[in-house]
Amino acid sequence: MRIVDLIEKKKQGQKHTREEIEYIINSLMDGTATDYQITAWLMAVYFKGMDIEETTNLTRAMINSGEVLDLSQIAENIIDKHSTGGVGDKITIILIPILQALGVPVVKLSGRGLGFTGGTIDKLESIPNFNCALSMPEIISQVKSIGAAIASQTSKLAPADGKLYALRDVTATVDSMPLIASSVVSKKIASGANNIILDVKYGSGAFMKTAEDAKQLSKIMVEVGKNLGKKFTAVVSAMNEPLGKAVGNSVEIIETIEFLKGNTCCDLEEITYKLAALSVMKMNLADNEEMAVDSIKRVIKNGVALEKFRKLVAAQGGNSDIIDNYNLLPQSVHKIEIKSKETGYVSSIDALMIAKASKLLGAGRDKKSDSIDYSAGVYLNKKTGDYTNCGDTIAILHFNEKSSEIVSLAESLVFDAFKFSDTKACCKSLIYAIIE
Amino acid sequence: MRIVDLIEKKKQGQKHTREEIEYIINSLMDGTATDYQITAWLMAVYFKGMDIEETTNLTRAMINSGEVLDLSQIAENIIDKHSTGGVGDKITIILIPILQALGVPVVKLSGRGLGFTGGTIDKLESIPNFNCALSMPEIISQVKSIGAAIASQTSKLAPADGKLYALRDVTATVDSMPLIASSVVSKKIASGANNIILDVKYGSGAFMKTAEDAKQLSKIMVEVGKNLGKKFTAVVSAMNEPLGKAVGNSVEIIETIEFLKGNTCCDLEEITYKLAALSVMKMNLADNEEMAVDSIKRVIKNGVALEKFRKLVAAQGGNSDIIDNYNLLPQSVHKIEIKSKETGYVSSIDALMIAKASKLLGAGRDKKSDSIDYSAGVYLNKKTGDYTNCGDTIAILHFNEKSSEIVSLAESLVFDAFKFSDTKACCKSLIYAIIE
Repeated sequence: MRIVDLIEKKKQGQKHTREEIEYIINSLMDGTATDYQITAWLMAVYFKGMDIEETTNLTRAMINSGEVLDLSQIAENIIDKHSTGGVGDKITIILIPILQALGVPVVKLSGRGLGFTGGTIDKLESIPNFNCALSMPEIISQVKSIGAAIASQTSKLAPADGKLYALRDVTATVDSMPLIASSVVSKKIASGANNIILDVKYGSGAFMKTAEDAKQLSKIMVEVGKNLGKKFTAVVSAMNEPLGKAVGNSVEIIETIEFLKGNTCCDLEEITYKLAALSVMKMNLADNEEMAVDSIKRVIKNGVALEKFRKLVAAQGGNSDIIDNYNLLPQSVHKIEIKSKETGYVSSIDALMIAKASKLLGAGRDKKSDSIDYSAGVYLNKKTGDYTNCGDTIAILHFNEKSSEIVSLAESLVFDAFKFSDTKACCKSLIYAIIE
Repeated sequence: MRIVDLIEKKKQGQKHTREEIEYIINSLMDGTATDYQITAWLMAVYFKGMDIEETTNLTRAMINSGEVLDLSQIAENIIDKHSTGGVGDKITIILIPILQALGVPVVKLSGRGLGFTGGTIDKLESIPNFNCALSMPEIISQVKSIGAAIASQTSKLAPADGKLYALRDVTATVDSMPLIASSVVSKKIASGANNIILDVKYGSGAFMKTAEDAKQLSKIMVEVGKNLGKKFTAVVSAMNEPLGKAVGNSVEIIETIEFLKGNTCCDLEEITYKLAALSVMKMNLADNEEMAVDSIKRVIKNGVALEKFRKLVAAQGGNSDIIDNYNLLPQSVHKIEIKSKETGYVSSIDALMIAKASKLLGAGRDKKSDSIDYSAGVYLNKKTGDYTNCGDTIAILHFNEKSSEIVSLAESLVFDAFKFSDTKACCKSLIYAIIE
């Protein structure tokens, strides 16, 4: 077999055999295929696609390129959750203590975020001393003792995915359904859970721009997961407006804690409850969704979820006093209020513009080596449907040392992100489809 | 500008500006673009194409990546000739002495062949001591004294093409019209001639499989050449049967000499006369094609062309005694005759099968570092239209040390390449179109 012939084959739109895909991934790993052959193949895959069987074979080959965690000594069924990424998406951090409170074991391995804000790991690391660098024995012992652990992904899991992603990122071959699906599913399966809940977003603030694309991607991931013996469930939801009110890192931790204290926010609640209820039902801990949601509401109301979060933070070395005193979290030196120049109901808040503003203020990174300003971000005082008088504060920018040009650029992005209307839009469900 | 954005742009099917293409080529040359980005871009170009303006800009950028030879001190008009490559294609070596004899200055820079047989340089180097490594002053002085020079291309001409071609070769991105056109035209223009005759082949033994593809490629090359201020003329001709009777290296030199001695072969004659006549007319040395062909026939008949070849061989250090004594050329130890099992007229001889047989016998190479067996090859005793009795020799295999498996594979390829018919096919012109 020669790589050049396999590139030609995909270029012609032909289907790869399992052996061919394994050859490609093995050659990538052992260096017998050059990076410049792999990227030509990736571009051919972008144009000609891969069917479910090929995508399954690619996913399997990527899983087999590294370690597969064995979580069986923790419990028979373990939940993992993955989001394709959205603006203000702190759901993982809210979901874990809720599931802990309900007795659902969770092992969540996350990557560091590249983009407009940090990822889940970055957000948690904004809590002083919070440690995500857990070893496998540490993860197992922690889940056994408190029911959950959240750790940064090691490069030993699906290393072929890491290599492929690094190449895709600089060759405009990220946006290919089979490549996205195999990347997500391989990492999730290598992480060891057998029940995986996928939060697949679409819209201006998401990677997928249309609901149909997100649904299509979800179907591929669920089917590939099933082919590889794991239960994947995907919730397809809109990401046109930031989720909740906080966008950044420590500001999102505060919103997480507020949620667990019962101060929930409409859109955040819808998605969190849905994902939590699906997890509870997957574990056979509730007969139907209504009962599952009731139990979720109960563990928030009675404070058990909040206490589980306190235990999680403490178990991973973080200062759990932040839960009662937000001043212990990183605070930005500057806070600028953005005022409305209109009176009426907020009709939309563009997620991408808010995300770009957060990035400008220092909340995100372009390269893994960039540092993040944990205290930077945007807080939305108004959400879609809220009535606003001219002069009301609609958002607050949080930042430290930034040039006036950058700050005024962020200001106008946030200002322009808000649209108003005379009539109040009816509150629509964000959830477009559940694929399982 | 970032390479990843330019890859994305081409992936979306958008048109590159001149500045963008120059940026890509400059980044390729100075290493700021990685090879794996360039190959992803090449694959996007394969799928989305480039228009004439983009191809012109790519060609210009590749020319400017290296030296451009200045031949103006030789003559105002210089002819160069390029073939896209065919089986048994020794026309360059026949054409040069004919043009010398007619007073047309020729500077021919050639690459070494990769493929079924050697290239023009390899064929000439089968002449003992023939030296193609001429410096620029040597080329100029030789053309001034004897009217022609043939040298191996230096890596200083269009080095970007060399880099791109090496990447295309291993990433299945060779067969892209704008990439082929810019490769050929950039090297030809950098070689310094202003009148370039292109011999563009199609068919089983050629890179382009259909006449229409070859015509399309020719149109692009002629137009790009014109955009860059040079006169390109393309002759589109069929390459379904080997040109002439000899396929290899030294065997083709013998056929070349025989041609110059007046022992011409039908198909070889048609293409050679056409290319020579076009060259003569481009130089305004004949009023029409008929007169041009008359003068070509004259210099063959009166032996002037043969004497010019003798001078060319001697000028470049070769042993010109080979012209009178073919035994001075490399001879193969083994010669196997292939006999016909049928009686009738040869109706076709598959060029690709003959080429593969020659390669098996040692006449070609896969990598530049492979060595060529100059004496290996296939000689066709019969051509299409020739009457053949059962038991007649239709071809002779020339080779040295080869395993019996290889030899029998070559035998069956050559045997199967011949098709027979009860009726004699009428002799058709090989020339499909002239593009200028």
